[in-house]
Amino acid sequence: MKKLLILPVSVCLGLFLQAQQPRMPFIVYIDAFSLKLIGQAFPLKNSFHRIDTALHSNFPAPVKRLLTHSSGLAVCFKTSSPRIAAKWCVTSRKSGNNMTPIVNKGLDLYIRRNGVWEFAGVGRPDSVCNEFVMAQNMDNAEKECMLYLPLYDEVKSLFIGVDSGYQIISGKDPFTKRVAVYGSSVTQGASASRPGMAYPARLSREMGINFINLGLSGNGTMEQEVADMVAGIQADAFVLDCFANPSPEQITERTAYLVKTIRAKHPHVPIIMIQSVFREIGNFNLPVREMVRRQNENTFKEYQKLKLAGIKNLYLIPGDDLLGKDHEGTTDGLHPNDLGFDRMLKVIRPAITPVINSIP
Amino acid sequence: MKKLLILPVSVCLGLFLQAQQPRMPFIVYIDAFSLKLIGQAFPLKNSFHRIDTALHSNFPAPVKRLLTHSSGLAVCFKTSSPRIAAKWCVTSRKSGNNMTPIVNKGLDLYIRRNGVWEFAGVGRPDSVCNEFVMAQNMDNAEKECMLYLPLYDEVKSLFIGVDSGYQIISGKDPFTKRVAVYGSSVTQGASASRPGMAYPARLSREMGINFINLGLSGNGTMEQEVADMVAGIQADAFVLDCFANPSPEQITERTAYLVKTIRAKHPHVPIIMIQSVFREIGNFNLPVREMVRRQNENTFKEYQKLKLAGIKNLYLIPGDDLLGKDHEGTTDGLHPNDLGFDRMLKVIRPAITPVINSIP
Repeated sequence: MKKLLILPVSVCLGLFLQAQQPRMPFIVYIDAFSLKLIGQAFPLKNSFHRIDTALHSNFPAPVKRLLTHSSGLAVCFKTSSPRIAAKWCVTSRKSGNNMTPIVNKGLDLYIRRNGVWEFAGVGRPDSVCNEFVMAQNMDNAEKECMLYLPLYDEVKSLFIGVDSGYQIISGKDPFTKRVAVYGSSVTQGASASRPGMAYPARLSREMGINFINLGLSGNGTMEQEVADMVAGIQADAFVLDCFANPSPEQITERTAYLVKTIRAKHPHVPIIMIQSVFREIGNFNLPVREMVRRQNENTFKEYQKLKLAGIKNLYLIPGDDLLGKDHEGTTDGLHPNDLGFDRMLKVIRPAITPVINSIP
Repeated sequence: MKKLLILPVSVCLGLFLQAQQPRMPFIVYIDAFSLKLIGQAFPLKNSFHRIDTALHSNFPAPVKRLLTHSSGLAVCFKTSSPRIAAKWCVTSRKSGNNMTPIVNKGLDLYIRRNGVWEFAGVGRPDSVCNEFVMAQNMDNAEKECMLYLPLYDEVKSLFIGVDSGYQIISGKDPFTKRVAVYGSSVTQGASASRPGMAYPARLSREMGINFINLGLSGNGTMEQEVADMVAGIQADAFVLDCFANPSPEQITERTAYLVKTIRAKHPHVPIIMIQSVFREIGNFNLPVREMVRRQNENTFKEYQKLKLAGIKNLYLIPGDDLLGKDHEGTTDGLHPNDLGFDRMLKVIRPAITPVINSIP
């Protein structure tokens, strides 16, 4: 009796649910490649990479590797199944010590209810290949689902499962317009707690716009060959959140090329630059503080020069208040936690909303 | 040249710092047991456990194991060293998939500046025994430091390092009064991004009060023997955040014993009950939603019965709005992320501040 009483409530709940559902149906899986995949800069057949890196042999090796990560990608489908599961395989690379395995290698399920995307459950990874029931005991109304893929790993395979007897059919892209966000680890989503909490993903859900995640952890440094690829994306606007990784000197050397190359290929689209978030270790680490100050100073100077050079529809969001003032908005002094991302959105969303809304 | 350009900025910064400081002093370590340790319910000699579990052979095994975790403990010291490092060993247990290794097994350094505790850096774990420079390139003014220990592991040893030529001396407990917080994984700190972001730790820094973390992941279920221990703590107030783990029936059976036992040993201290946070998987999972509703309903009934029975200075904080309404405040549908914790504090802090301030 005593032993029973000390069972954690999750176990109790499990037993309760088992008792309620003596004949649980088995789960039938289908390959996610048969469903709508959103978030890729260029559509790729049967790949969860963000870019076909085979087309870019001149990219730096870390950039190529990072573009194989499924950051910002999501699978859209509909089902009435009361239970939604996934089987997926990622690489054997170790998770970052500043990330949850869920955000690094896991899945994040949203369901649209009354027009609003609401969190429904996660896929927890424990190994290279994983199987997890993300949501269960739901009603059996038809649900429009969006499943975010891992932010910091390559997805080798993904199967989505529903209760036998229920259908799963492909959804459509729920978002309009496309905004390419090129940037650093912050853009890629370090250190959100789960994939759907990366700030471009939150912007997509909240604004109904397709924000394409081109965050390149530690490597959002505006190399010409990468700038050429970014400029080649069919997008209605560009967000350049790529001033945290390059040195202040690189910012001076490279920003104009990136902006002008985008402008040459897209004569009228808005281009929105975002200064680097404050690196909170710089609260006490004096050279880090000075480096961020110089990065943002040089970013501002480039912005001014480009405006003077006649680049229209160019905007700059200042970095000063992106994480608030209490220094609590990061996981490790470098990467926003979900609180930091929430604060970033409170600055970024009102700044970009009128710009994005003005796109025809 | 090209290869150099693609070096991540952290490497560039490293090279820059090396160039600036050609003769970096070596680091001298001292045993953290020679420094002030705060956060233990009962002072323990040479142990980073929260409770001496050898004194409680009748506790359930998971409770005993969880009480060896260093959740809420912090080491206080002063130094003028521009660099602060740590060597520490934890267990080989795998980190949770809903936690960063930093919060699970890592360290979190704060420095008091102008009377305010400010984040300074983390200790990143990568193994059982770890060594990490948490802050560097600081000015050499004397700094009052507080180093939070891992929330979800046992610390086997801890040494704190400063630059040779600098002293490290023990600090004193920076907080007044003691508030024991008995609860679940949410209390213990799942899923904050780093140890200092657990909500009792944030309350301590923001209110200047010693909140003692007695969160027992999955096991905050009010067994009589645990209730007896909690009631034995010399505290100026008790927060009971223990209504997420027990079943609704257990809440009905056990709450009165816990509250009355505390009241018997502490005739006048405030006792503050907090209803369970909403479990966000219950947004679609109907039995989970119903279970949380019943947990909170029964908690409210117990609160009313205890008030009617004449228990004075007893308070209840409703659970409805602890995580906000957008369902984005958790890491995994069960445990708050830093955004969820921030929202919890926006409810809890104003509710408890007048109560705590009224303590003589």
